[in-house]
Amino acid sequence: MPSDLKSYIRDIADFPQPGIIFKDITPLLANPQALNQASENLFALTLGKKINKVAAIEARGFIFGSILAKMLNVGMVPIRKPGKLPAATIKTSYSLEYGSNDLEIHKDAISQGDLVLVHDDVLATGGTAKAACELIEKLGGTVVQLIFLIQLNFLNGKEKLSEYEARSVLSY
Amino acid sequence: MPSDLKSYIRDIADFPQPGIIFKDITPLLANPQALNQASENLFALTLGKKINKVAAIEARGFIFGSILAKMLNVGMVPIRKPGKLPAATIKTSYSLEYGSNDLEIHKDAISQGDLVLVHDDVLATGGTAKAACELIEKLGGTVVQLIFLIQLNFLNGKEKLSEYEARSVLSY
Repeated sequence: MPSDLKSYIRDIADFPQPGIIFKDITPLLANPQALNQASENLFALTLGKKINKVAAIEARGFIFGSILAKMLNVGMVPIRKPGKLPAATIKTSYSLEYGSNDLEIHKDAISQGDLVLVHDDVLATGGTAKAACELIEKLGGTVVQLIFLIQLNFLNGKEKLSEYEARSVLSY
Repeated sequence: MPSDLKSYIRDIADFPQPGIIFKDITPLLANPQALNQASENLFALTLGKKINKVAAIEARGFIFGSILAKMLNVGMVPIRKPGKLPAATIKTSYSLEYGSNDLEIHKDAISQGDLVLVHDDVLATGGTAKAACELIEKLGGTVVQLIFLIQLNFLNGKEKLSEYEARSVLSY
């Protein structure tokens, strides 16, 4: 059992832009015990919650988002960059740590009354996650909680998500 | 239990280009029983194989690739489009059903002697999967098998992968 999951997260300087220190989760993914422990720790954050869908944000959010959906025995809904989802979508814009972008969700991915867990690997400024919540709510879903593998405290993402329950496994 | 997983795959005409009929797996992902059944069916294709890493191709390959890694209790290695992986990478080019592209893998993702399962959601022409195999082999890994959720027989992807064991859950 990995004693400290943080030892499997590596800092990459100047990625994707100069001045950014990127938290690389690939060493954690590559280690079976760390992958399993991270999955269990994420799952533990959902205990006691009533959830019927996991919305996972492209692309790294698909990794633990899919594992979580299977562990929770619920469906998985991809939230993607523009032009990637093939059927009818709705779109929203968001600003992120380095730039701005659009996110899309299939119109039929969320039904009125769905209880949705939102997952991404890293909570940075919270812009992406907030946009994902807006998409879910536009379609009549309720965001029950947001869970992240990593949160970067100095970027204050939790403030942007203050109306939601946002939790993470690892905090920097 | 879903009697037929194919009933959860939907055809989208003219995506991503006119004349292409895209197999949309999102209805399958959204249904907990279908998601679970597809995971179990993929896992069943690996029985009897000695595997110590799952290499999953961005972005939809991350979905079942991650689930499979957890079920197999092995590490997961992302294979991504250029510029997405933060540490040192190697790159290869491939042609696909509609265009051409590059794929990257972290140099340290595969070690000499690794026994690797390659996963993507759809086997079309096989160009992407073949490129993934090349990356793994360049780093000293052995491709034990390739498994896909869907294969499109009319695109003859299995011919391009004839030196490997390539299997899929659903065949069209």
